[in-house]
Amino acid sequence: MASNSSLDLFYDAVLTLTKSAGQIIREKNLERNKYVEFKKSPKDLVTETDKQVERYLIDGIAGKFPDHKFIGEESSKEIVLTDAPTWVIDPIDGTMNFVHSFPHSCISIALYVNKQPVIGIVYNPMLEQLFTARKGQGAYLNGQPIKVSQVKTLSTALLMLENWGPSPNYQLTPEVQEHLKSLSDDSHSSRCLGSAALDLCMVACGAAEAYYSYGLQVWDIAAGELIVTEAGGMVTDVNGGPLDRLAKRMLATNNKEINDALAERLVALEEKMKKKGDL
Amino acid sequence: MASNSSLDLFYDAVLTLTKSAGQIIREKNLERNKYVEFKKSPKDLVTETDKQVERYLIDGIAGKFPDHKFIGEESSKEIVLTDAPTWVIDPIDGTMNFVHSFPHSCISIALYVNKQPVIGIVYNPMLEQLFTARKGQGAYLNGQPIKVSQVKTLSTALLMLENWGPSPNYQLTPEVQEHLKSLSDDSHSSRCLGSAALDLCMVACGAAEAYYSYGLQVWDIAAGELIVTEAGGMVTDVNGGPLDRLAKRMLATNNKEINDALAERLVALEEKMKKKGDL
Repeated sequence: MASNSSLDLFYDAVLTLTKSAGQIIREKNLERNKYVEFKKSPKDLVTETDKQVERYLIDGIAGKFPDHKFIGEESSKEIVLTDAPTWVIDPIDGTMNFVHSFPHSCISIALYVNKQPVIGIVYNPMLEQLFTARKGQGAYLNGQPIKVSQVKTLSTALLMLENWGPSPNYQLTPEVQEHLKSLSDDSHSSRCLGSAALDLCMVACGAAEAYYSYGLQVWDIAAGELIVTEAGGMVTDVNGGPLDRLAKRMLATNNKEINDALAERLVALEEKMKKKGDL
Repeated sequence: MASNSSLDLFYDAVLTLTKSAGQIIREKNLERNKYVEFKKSPKDLVTETDKQVERYLIDGIAGKFPDHKFIGEESSKEIVLTDAPTWVIDPIDGTMNFVHSFPHSCISIALYVNKQPVIGIVYNPMLEQLFTARKGQGAYLNGQPIKVSQVKTLSTALLMLENWGPSPNYQLTPEVQEHLKSLSDDSHSSRCLGSAALDLCMVACGAAEAYYSYGLQVWDIAAGELIVTEAGGMVTDVNGGPLDRLAKRMLATNNKEINDALAERLVALEEKMKKKGDL
């Protein structure tokens, strides 16, 4: 395990690198007609800037801490998570937003030690929102401490819900539509920013009560998970059990009451879908 | 018709008032457990700050321009729009967001002369986003000119869609769900900020290609309409015909191609719903 003083050293160095990398994103964000390549589908986009920022961060960290490992959205062919200090990087979370200059993209970068997050940084350079957390030291937005909301009932909760991830099989089957409609009826409302990392930070700073999603990669959640838990929130599997960081499914809430209420619905939805042969 | 120089006088005075009023919202935004009253439903909220900001704006403008009229969300019992200079005010568009400290609320204020918008100001004091437009003089974000996006195909468009307004009868009937699913499949994606005025400004600044909604009040759209058209975009009825500002339905797009594509779908949806007896 890395010592606290070495963790502080890592944090300071990577915060400086992240802020510099953010300037690259901010400058490029307003350019129209960015050069876009497709990954697995016509909606799975990557730009030169995603690659440039990941390279910049990895080169910068490797230069200072040569024994550290990396898992990066744009450079990792396969995800191998060991106990070694490992930086888990999404150079631009919200690439679709970035392509459209919709100002809700961010760098998400976390340090895992023994497969657990100990540093988390989420930085949106367009809106100058810098969310940070270190294990056991609380969570911060632009240096000010943040706390999750105290709302305890789903009926007065605001939810973060992205259209790619509300369904266990990524399909809007009638069961999923019914689930989403009842969730909408039974909560205050939902919002959609187009970035998992920023959705998690909205839960952390008390602006929303919950975010759940299927289809998440470890780099989408690595920093946000720590920021939510250090702000006093909970991050679990969608069924309310322990989070498996490589299982691509996650439920983040401000407290146990909201976690229970949502996990119950998500378990029921999965059971219904299994019965129908949809899962 | 008010002269150009008197319009400049109105604009300067109201911009100053709006910026001051924004400070009230910014200070109150971070307070937890705001005192909330309900209007027509448990999700139709109003706070002391909505009322305070509307009072502040109306008193401030009336003190300077005593012959001006007002339509305000919180103070107008009925909507009477005449040819006289009339300020159309939503003191906090996105009250639900404000209640949750979700940082996407704004003051929306517009001047109508001869029932047409000539000044539009949308100000989000949490994120320091000040969108402004004067008839014939372009649209601006924090003083910098803004333009709509040049995307011409729905398949590469980003849409703003709020969960209260995607349906002509405000119900998520199977037809509406099918429409939303095909819209999601056939576009890049959709986002949801929880404020009609800010959704319109996202279209104006090129961050999204379109926003449509049913159930909109005139104060939701008064400022945003002018900001979109001055940024080069189009604002029409959902069927693509002329906008009726009191008809509670609106389609705002970056250009005619996207307008045509969406209006066609919305007309088809309404026809299908009428046939089924849902409208």
